[in-house]
Amino acid sequence: MSIETAAQRKATILAEALPYIQRFHGKTIVIKYGGNAMTEEALKLQFARDVVLLKLVGINPVVVHGGGPQIGDFLKRVGKQSEFVQGMRVTDRETMDIVEMVLGGLVNKEIVSLINQQGGRAVGLSGKDGGFIRARRLKVKGSAGDSEWLDIGQVGEVERIDPEIVSLLDSRDFIPVIAPIGEGSDGEAYNINADLVAGNLAQTLKAEKLVLLTNTQGVLDKRGNLLTGLTAAEVQGLIADGTIYGGMLPKIDCALRAVCNGVSTAHIIDGRVPHALLLEVLTDAGVGTLIKGG
Amino acid sequence: MSIETAAQRKATILAEALPYIQRFHGKTIVIKYGGNAMTEEALKLQFARDVVLLKLVGINPVVVHGGGPQIGDFLKRVGKQSEFVQGMRVTDRETMDIVEMVLGGLVNKEIVSLINQQGGRAVGLSGKDGGFIRARRLKVKGSAGDSEWLDIGQVGEVERIDPEIVSLLDSRDFIPVIAPIGEGSDGEAYNINADLVAGNLAQTLKAEKLVLLTNTQGVLDKRGNLLTGLTAAEVQGLIADGTIYGGMLPKIDCALRAVCNGVSTAHIIDGRVPHALLLEVLTDAGVGTLIKGG
Amino acid sequence: MSIETAAQRKATILAEALPYIQRFHGKTIVIKYGGNAMTEEALKLQFARDVVLLKLVGINPVVVHGGGPQIGDFLKRVGKQSEFVQGMRVTDRETMDIVEMVLGGLVNKEIVSLINQQGGRAVGLSGKDGGFIRARRLKVKGSAGDSEWLDIGQVGEVERIDPEIVSLLDSRDFIPVIAPIGEGSDGEAYNINADLVAGNLAQTLKAEKLVLLTNTQGVLDKRGNLLTGLTAAEVQGLIADGTIYGGMLPKIDCALRAVCNGVSTAHIIDGRVPHALLLEVLTDAGVGTLIKGG
Amino acid sequence: MSIETAAQRKATILAEALPYIQRFHGKTIVIKYGGNAMTEEALKLQFARDVVLLKLVGINPVVVHGGGPQIGDFLKRVGKQSEFVQGMRVTDRETMDIVEMVLGGLVNKEIVSLINQQGGRAVGLSGKDGGFIRARRLKVKGSAGDSEWLDIGQVGEVERIDPEIVSLLDSRDFIPVIAPIGEGSDGEAYNINADLVAGNLAQTLKAEKLVLLTNTQGVLDKRGNLLTGLTAAEVQGLIADGTIYGGMLPKIDCALRAVCNGVSTAHIIDGRVPHALLLEVLTDAGVGTLIKGG
Amino acid sequence: MSIETAAQRKATILAEALPYIQRFHGKTIVIKYGGNAMTEEALKLQFARDVVLLKLVGINPVVVHGGGPQIGDFLKRVGKQSEFVQGMRVTDRETMDIVEMVLGGLVNKEIVSLINQQGGRAVGLSGKDGGFIRARRLKVKGSAGDSEWLDIGQVGEVERIDPEIVSLLDSRDFIPVIAPIGEGSDGEAYNINADLVAGNLAQTLKAEKLVLLTNTQGVLDKRGNLLTGLTAAEVQGLIADGTIYGGMLPKIDCALRAVCNGVSTAHIIDGRVPHALLLEVLTDAGVGTLIKGG
Amino acid sequence: MSIETAAQRKATILAEALPYIQRFHGKTIVIKYGGNAMTEEALKLQFARDVVLLKLVGINPVVVHGGGPQIGDFLKRVGKQSEFVQGMRVTDRETMDIVEMVLGGLVNKEIVSLINQQGGRAVGLSGKDGGFIRARRLKVKGSAGDSEWLDIGQVGEVERIDPEIVSLLDSRDFIPVIAPIGEGSDGEAYNINADLVAGNLAQTLKAEKLVLLTNTQGVLDKRGNLLTGLTAAEVQGLIADGTIYGGMLPKIDCALRAVCNGVSTAHIIDGRVPHALLLEVLTDAGVGTLIKGG
Repeated sequence: MSIETAAQRKATILAEALPYIQRFHGKTIVIKYGGNAMTEEALKLQFARDVVLLKLVGINPVVVHGGGPQIGDFLKRVGKQSEFVQGMRVTDRETMDIVEMVLGGLVNKEIVSLINQQGGRAVGLSGKDGGFIRARRLKVKGSAGDSEWLDIGQVGEVERIDPEIVSLLDSRDFIPVIAPIGEGSDGEAYNINADLVAGNLAQTLKAEKLVLLTNTQGVLDKRGNLLTGLTAAEVQGLIADGTIYGGMLPKIDCALRAVCNGVSTAHIIDGRVPHALLLEVLTDAGVGTLIKGG
Repeated sequence: MSIETAAQRKATILAEALPYIQRFHGKTIVIKYGGNAMTEEALKLQFARDVVLLKLVGINPVVVHGGGPQIGDFLKRVGKQSEFVQGMRVTDRETMDIVEMVLGGLVNKEIVSLINQQGGRAVGLSGKDGGFIRARRLKVKGSAGDSEWLDIGQVGEVERIDPEIVSLLDSRDFIPVIAPIGEGSDGEAYNINADLVAGNLAQTLKAEKLVLLTNTQGVLDKRGNLLTGLTAAEVQGLIADGTIYGGMLPKIDCALRAVCNGVSTAHIIDGRVPHALLLEVLTDAGVGTLIKGG
Repeated sequence: MSIETAAQRKATILAEALPYIQRFHGKTIVIKYGGNAMTEEALKLQFARDVVLLKLVGINPVVVHGGGPQIGDFLKRVGKQSEFVQGMRVTDRETMDIVEMVLGGLVNKEIVSLINQQGGRAVGLSGKDGGFIRARRLKVKGSAGDSEWLDIGQVGEVERIDPEIVSLLDSRDFIPVIAPIGEGSDGEAYNINADLVAGNLAQTLKAEKLVLLTNTQGVLDKRGNLLTGLTAAEVQGLIADGTIYGGMLPKIDCALRAVCNGVSTAHIIDGRVPHALLLEVLTDAGVGTLIKGG
Repeated sequence: MSIETAAQRKATILAEALPYIQRFHGKTIVIKYGGNAMTEEALKLQFARDVVLLKLVGINPVVVHGGGPQIGDFLKRVGKQSEFVQGMRVTDRETMDIVEMVLGGLVNKEIVSLINQQGGRAVGLSGKDGGFIRARRLKVKGSAGDSEWLDIGQVGEVERIDPEIVSLLDSRDFIPVIAPIGEGSDGEAYNINADLVAGNLAQTLKAEKLVLLTNTQGVLDKRGNLLTGLTAAEVQGLIADGTIYGGMLPKIDCALRAVCNGVSTAHIIDGRVPHALLLEVLTDAGVGTLIKGG
Repeated sequence: MSIETAAQRKATILAEALPYIQRFHGKTIVIKYGGNAMTEEALKLQFARDVVLLKLVGINPVVVHGGGPQIGDFLKRVGKQSEFVQGMRVTDRETMDIVEMVLGGLVNKEIVSLINQQGGRAVGLSGKDGGFIRARRLKVKGSAGDSEWLDIGQVGEVERIDPEIVSLLDSRDFIPVIAPIGEGSDGEAYNINADLVAGNLAQTLKAEKLVLLTNTQGVLDKRGNLLTGLTAAEVQGLIADGTIYGGMLPKIDCALRAVCNGVSTAHIIDGRVPHALLLEVLTDAGVGTLIKGG
Repeated sequence: MSIETAAQRKATILAEALPYIQRFHGKTIVIKYGGNAMTEEALKLQFARDVVLLKLVGINPVVVHGGGPQIGDFLKRVGKQSEFVQGMRVTDRETMDIVEMVLGGLVNKEIVSLINQQGGRAVGLSGKDGGFIRARRLKVKGSAGDSEWLDIGQVGEVERIDPEIVSLLDSRDFIPVIAPIGEGSDGEAYNINADLVAGNLAQTLKAEKLVLLTNTQGVLDKRGNLLTGLTAAEVQGLIADGTIYGGMLPKIDCALRAVCNGVSTAHIIDGRVPHALLLEVLTDAGVGTLIKGG
């Protein structure tokens, strides 16, 4: 293939991004960042470039990250045993300190630095900053089905999000990168599931898209084939008939709530694919499952 | 090639545009639009999309168009003979009316409409609008080398450009599309060479780039090979030794003046290549000759 | 008369303009400019000065011009026969090109230049600029009264006006001068009656006044006397009893729609009177017929 | 004369004001208001209308008023004897209270109200407001020529003007009306000559014009003929040869300082002429003496 | 007591002001200033400092002052007899001039100067300035209970307040100081009760607090004990049973109307207490009676 | 003491803060927060209130915190031995991770939360956020005096500070709280001395004051008495004669550089005194040593 032709192919592909940039220009996209995309070097780099590119072409990315594995590693290192209840880590105050240190001090700043290295200007936030994520203790029912509540410590849910600090950064050249930690009215820190924070934030910011980067292909049907587009109603059917189950359930729940509360579309995409974010937003190549309201 | 892989190639190409978008973000690029790129349907469409895409990714394109062939066609149609002196059309007042009608009424609005169809918001201007291109009669020496001045009518040169109306449109979502007509202090209209207007405008707007779309590959050396990058000094050498001559001379002169007056780079590119503009600005694939100061 | 006294008379007259300037300060006035006021040199000059003066004293004039006679002349010149249906020129695509050239390239720029010569800063626009006049094909019923539609080509009506570009110019020192050409959703150009465009624009801009410059004294009663002030209801009576008929009907219709849609008053005035516009806006000397709602 | 023709004459006169409005648009004009123009009912009304009209056509009038006669009347009424030294009223603290009451409470508010009645929005200020006129005690030499200083009490001169409050009002719809009272660094009030305040203010505001309304025709030559235009140099000659003398001297001195410190022109005009201000600013009919620098 | 300890006490007291500053930050407080606080030197100085301090900590004070005693003194001095009807001074035009002079020229400027001496930037206004207090003649019924109206001259009530000039000053560093004079639609001046003006202004500005400085402790119960907090309902009970009577009635009426029209709280406080204003706003030490709606 | 009198004392003390608030209004104060003030509960609470109060009264506090002891504790806990060279911790990459976790994740967010609990809106930043602290590796000479450089790992010094993100937060209601971590051009994290960061930031922000909270009384003379005020010259004398030595030297050096680079005053104050910050800024009770330029 001659150089000329390769160049023209490039140009054609760039030009094909035009309608997508037009559609999402000036809009906000909340991205839950986690899984392999957050641990494999090449994927990390590509993710950072994708985020910077979106910002430059006039789309406002807001990144919410997880960090469960990193927390687990560090707890092990300091010789702290982790106990889990219904998939959630029982989080005493000492564990919560470790959570804040790992998420806010290490993971968050690594992502910030990665984006900065690509020419972006990321600013890391925890929900304590400007008190913007107000949290409350998550109430968990015992599995025995009786009315007793389990105490799993500083695990929280979102009570209210004050979008001012995020919007302020958004409206400038800055890219907000958010650690999913909330602050109770009493000043206590709470560890919140990152999908939940991303979903809530997408609703509060009236985002165009909620994108959940996962280590799966997306939502699969019973024969294991990818379902590329689903309505809220179809999703509920798939939950009812057991097609969607297990670890996908909480993610699908965040997605559903978002599209039922003003977010145009939610996406459960495969973060293991290089440039998954860019493909999802700027091309017609779907890399997972799109969910829309109605 | 699997679909997945094609998608990833797309993503890679998009990601490769990142450093170019970063470099030119918020900058102004003045484009002289003419030649085949203005007459072939496919090229016209691609040009319009390129302009809209540049605007969307935060770069401010300003288009200056020519229209010599269209003027010639129309003059023929109304049975008006054209006389040329040193390559310039002798332009009596009646001819000037035709020039204004064809450039300002037809060609300009066709480009405006083309860009609008691609989702842009172009606004056509002639130099009379807001009186922004102040012109004076071009003085042409007789070829005999004597001191006599030839009268070629309403052919003008730029006296002064008031950038306010262009900057105003630029700072909003609008894309200025400019017909190279100037207004004398006495209110008379003057036909000005479009390359000249583009070069002057690039200087006044402190543009990052001046891009001249031509029907040539660019500047060629004596053996007909493309010279992809030249300094101002090298250009002067090539003029001196006759490598650059004829119709390329006035274009190269505009380019030189621009880079000597604050424009970072000037480009003489091949408008016959699809998406030539996009290739020039957003990729490492040169499609012509770059000229820089120093 | 002594110099002193003449001076004082001047001062008195200037002072008498005060309540009119106060009433219309910061308001927009849409003026349909046409007829003799657009062809006689002295009247043209006076019109341009009037427009500049209104702008300076804080009133925002928006000029919409016609150009039927100029189009006709030019069509004749290029040997193109004009056919009329119900008073409208059948406009094939070739004719439409001529319309755009004459209106947008020649007439519009001449008015722009005229205003600039008086110290104003006019900017010419066609409805294609920024795509601000969205048009659709005018549907014309055959005269036979049957249900058949006549094809008269690129003759359009206003579908929607996007006031942004006009308001932007208006809010600065610029005076918009508009050629009545609209753009279809398919990018096609349409020739629209200038009265219609002026009326629609006045409504969209929530103008204070719509002023139609004509070659008549205004609306006359059956005995040929000028009716200086009419309510919408009275106008409808005069249409019903045949006092208003013929060429006045479409003008009166534009005026009626405007005052029924938020424009305070519409004026059909005699453009043959020197400074007719100034007299209408800044003095108590009516020069035509005022129509108001209710 | 037919009505039509009278109307047209009006229009012509209005149109003739265009170049003046253009020249002074957005400029500030400081007017010392006093003498008959401040006491005769018809002149007062005309002055108020003139000020409102100037504001409306985009010129910013700032009014500084005197009030010597009114102060004298009131002092007489409260049985307080006035003593004068070199034409200045010896002003003890009790007298100063009366000065503030008459100037700030009565005269100032009467002018404010007069302007408001004509549709303007005047705001009265004394130099104490926002502390904007910082004054110091005027030092007066004894007439004996010895080095002794006379104590004439609370008579002051301008030390410094802080233009913020005046500019703030100016930049909105408000018309500042200023009583010539200054505040010392110790909070004491000082009575300052209104011509001096007007002159200083014109310099500080970088005004286009300083207009002093007087009860004279202007500066006269030795034979009593009006001198309509003078340069600073010519003025100095006329002072040297005794043509300008007496009460005109301090006025001419204010005018000179103003034109030597950035004010374009100073005008000593005849406030007894109806609409003197309007004639001066908006017509070619001079009503007094113009002084310019150089 | 050691210096250290005294210093710490200071710090503690400053720190205790925090919640009050937080609560009232960015809010407007309208203060009726009168009585001893306006005549005793030490109290005047403290009042001025309090006002400046409030402004600096982000609260916007608006001062409305009275001046009855000063008017009375001056009338006596010019030998003008005062007649009172139902506690209101019969105000002929000559008296009204004196009122304007004393309130607007003397008292207002003294307060302005006092605040400026403490580092504030006060600007004095009468209701004539910008025509911001539109007044109408107060109608007073004869005491005989018959339908006859008494003529007490230029005594007015508030018809409408245009908050623009006050808000403009408020939004900058300026502190408005207002003389309670209104302007009729005919340009006539009216003397209005200062409590009334303060109450009306508080409503128009949607103030947080209306503070009436008086020469009483506040509202007392039948045994002479201070009532520190009252609801609107309780106030009405106390009026009904005669606990509140006489001179307190009009004050209490202003307070009631204010809290029923959007002002959070009204305060009748003891202006004889040093720093009464500061104590009321920034500490938990009440110095009078608080009235709130509901 | 009666309640009344206690209240009045409060008011007096509040009023005494006026000149200090006036002087520092709108100014920025950079505070190095550390030592006991950061570990004792009562002092922490008072510090947080002081910061919130300063913000509310219009002064912009910027907090830079240390955290050496907390880092040491945590390193011990994870069984990591600390080695020190010339008082600086040798910081390998693993240690640097711990530094970032403890400073950015734990200490920073605890201060943020503390300020939020007092009603402020603190936002925590590390120098990585927005890449605002660009750092480079600190070069340390071996003690042997030879030319060999010691490698102490990720210990850095400030290369450049980009004030945009801090100024953005500052200009709104937010209080920046900064962990002294810098980012190298290669994306590496560096631990920087907090005094250094505070000093540099004060210079970049053109702060009014640099306040270093310490666990000492301030600078003492040879007999152990506090020196309350020193010029830069005096400080240099005290260094020369050995009065200032040891751990005070780097602090005094930061202070000196700040006052020599545009910061008005630097303060080394006793953070063990309750409300030390408030005392320093808003009262005349010095609590340490003031250093000024010249």
